[in-house]
Amino acid sequence: MKRRQSATQLAERMLAGDSLALPRLISLVEGESAAVAEIMRRIAPHTGRAYCVGVTGPPGAGKSTVVDKLTVLMRQRGLSVGIVAVDPSSPFTGGALLGDRIRMQQHYLDPGVFIRSMATRGSHGGLPGTVQGVIKLLDASGRDVILVETVGVGQTELDVVNTADVVIVVVTPESGDAVQAMKAGLFEIADIFAINKADREGAQRMKAELEAILAMKPGESIAVVLTEAHRGVGIEELYQELERYRRAQEENGELERRRRHRRREEFLELLQRRIRRRFLDFADKDGQLKALTEQVVAGELDPYSACARVLGDRHWLDKWLSQEGPALSEAEG
Amino acid sequence: MKRRQSATQLAERMLAGDSLALPRLISLVEGESAAVAEIMRRIAPHTGRAYCVGVTGPPGAGKSTVVDKLTVLMRQRGLSVGIVAVDPSSPFTGGALLGDRIRMQQHYLDPGVFIRSMATRGSHGGLPGTVQGVIKLLDASGRDVILVETVGVGQTELDVVNTADVVIVVVTPESGDAVQAMKAGLFEIADIFAINKADREGAQRMKAELEAILAMKPGESIAVVLTEAHRGVGIEELYQELERYRRAQEENGELERRRRHRRREEFLELLQRRIRRRFLDFADKDGQLKALTEQVVAGELDPYSACARVLGDRHWLDKWLSQEGPALSEAEG
Repeated sequence: MKRRQSATQLAERMLAGDSLALPRLISLVEGESAAVAEIMRRIAPHTGRAYCVGVTGPPGAGKSTVVDKLTVLMRQRGLSVGIVAVDPSSPFTGGALLGDRIRMQQHYLDPGVFIRSMATRGSHGGLPGTVQGVIKLLDASGRDVILVETVGVGQTELDVVNTADVVIVVVTPESGDAVQAMKAGLFEIADIFAINKADREGAQRMKAELEAILAMKPGESIAVVLTEAHRGVGIEELYQELERYRRAQEENGELERRRRHRRREEFLELLQRRIRRRFLDFADKDGQLKALTEQVVAGELDPYSACARVLGDRHWLDKWLSQEGPALSEAEG
Repeated sequence: MKRRQSATQLAERMLAGDSLALPRLISLVEGESAAVAEIMRRIAPHTGRAYCVGVTGPPGAGKSTVVDKLTVLMRQRGLSVGIVAVDPSSPFTGGALLGDRIRMQQHYLDPGVFIRSMATRGSHGGLPGTVQGVIKLLDASGRDVILVETVGVGQTELDVVNTADVVIVVVTPESGDAVQAMKAGLFEIADIFAINKADREGAQRMKAELEAILAMKPGESIAVVLTEAHRGVGIEELYQELERYRRAQEENGELERRRRHRRREEFLELLQRRIRRRFLDFADKDGQLKALTEQVVAGELDPYSACARVLGDRHWLDKWLSQEGPALSEAEG
């Protein structure tokens, strides 16, 4: 109870402008503290103001540099920025990808920029909820823009991108041709394409190809921008496209539609996680389920028949739902 | 009903040795057909005979070549082989990784080798169940060995590896040093290390480093084998290590312990998927939940408060669990 109170106090302090409260709240959300629900409830009325920009693309495309240069430009325009860098889970890349983030260090002294790296390693689809929580905290803390950078390697990272108001897909001339991009579903993800490292061979051809495909979808307006992020080339144009996209989104109601969709997904996902957590707690304790599990473990009963037995047993389901405890309404699963 | 009967008939035909039935059953499992439960129930008594070898490692380590050469060697020893190649989900790699599989085509004419490629794209943690199903079909069809190859990029692929009896981690001298491997958790995954492309610089040093770390864990015996798979070098030794590992596993009961653990995980995972499916079906239909969702979508209620309201409402939970239908006991979620 004490912990929840102090989390609420932390939230109050953050909303009152205390810059020290934000990182502590983020840690609570990342640690899936029991206080998360209370924090989210408290900050909910203060969210929805920030504009959330997802930046994704294959490893080595230069996403971090694009984010870095966009941040510089936004700061020059007086916008406060939050950056969430999500790294994919892999025992083979380890923490190596985080090395890129070193380039961001010039911003660490600027109170107008808040940077947080998060790793998806070891998560089972539960992470998007955590990333969403961190984005909401940044939003409620008053950031004007939130940049969410992720390597689009796994489903988890793509889910994260789907929490953005707009998605920039960063590719390079080496990423393959436009037909490959279409097959890979990039046209479904991208609101804006940035062809980075555009001084390399094939950049113009790739742009022409992407635009030819985009021309076949007259309803949508997806811009293709050539950038050389490390030299700052094309970043102003990319920013202008972002602004144009946002204005159009606000005028035609697309932004609100997108956010409504996101809220629906978030709620149903949360509800499912809670039900799952309730189930796992129960599975740990219930003697009847344990006995059935032992039969499966011993190979005496196949898992499908065991499942049918459990879910066909109203008495078991009643027992499951009757269990009470703080885990049901508070903890994340 | 007709569909289920014919699936059962297909299963009977496969168990009777009809080689045309297997690919059709695999398609049913991959398509998450309603008949999956019936198929699995039918083949359950015929599983547990094949030895399942997981092969994982970073992209470009040469896993496909290792699998290819191991297959040749196993065929020479008269063993029948099933190969399941799982590709990671990424809109940026698309189907490119499958290109490696071309090298496997020499086996397509050999009835003693069955090869199936599966993509994890678009799955939300549900895939391991599908891969497990395919492995079981190969097992019940009488394969002696099943090789499961996957790029260890995401959690989904790692889950797949965890369904194996033994895991070979393929690295290259360029993969980094042994300390990095330790940090990345490779020592937790690997039962056998293969340092492939061992003609490159640093292979011997990497082997010495890995062995030095392994020496600190006297309870376990993890071999480190140098291979040059494209030339067939070291494959015989790798095979001998597999055989040695298997014998030890069978003698000390570790194989059975591992399989028991897997059966437990599989059952609980399946039960959770079913509960999730039941929930989603219900959420689609229930007026009360829809009304609450609309409040969340409109931003009038935060998702956490809405969750607490649903899960605190015994009447709602009763309604949820009282719904009936074939989806409850049959379909995959």
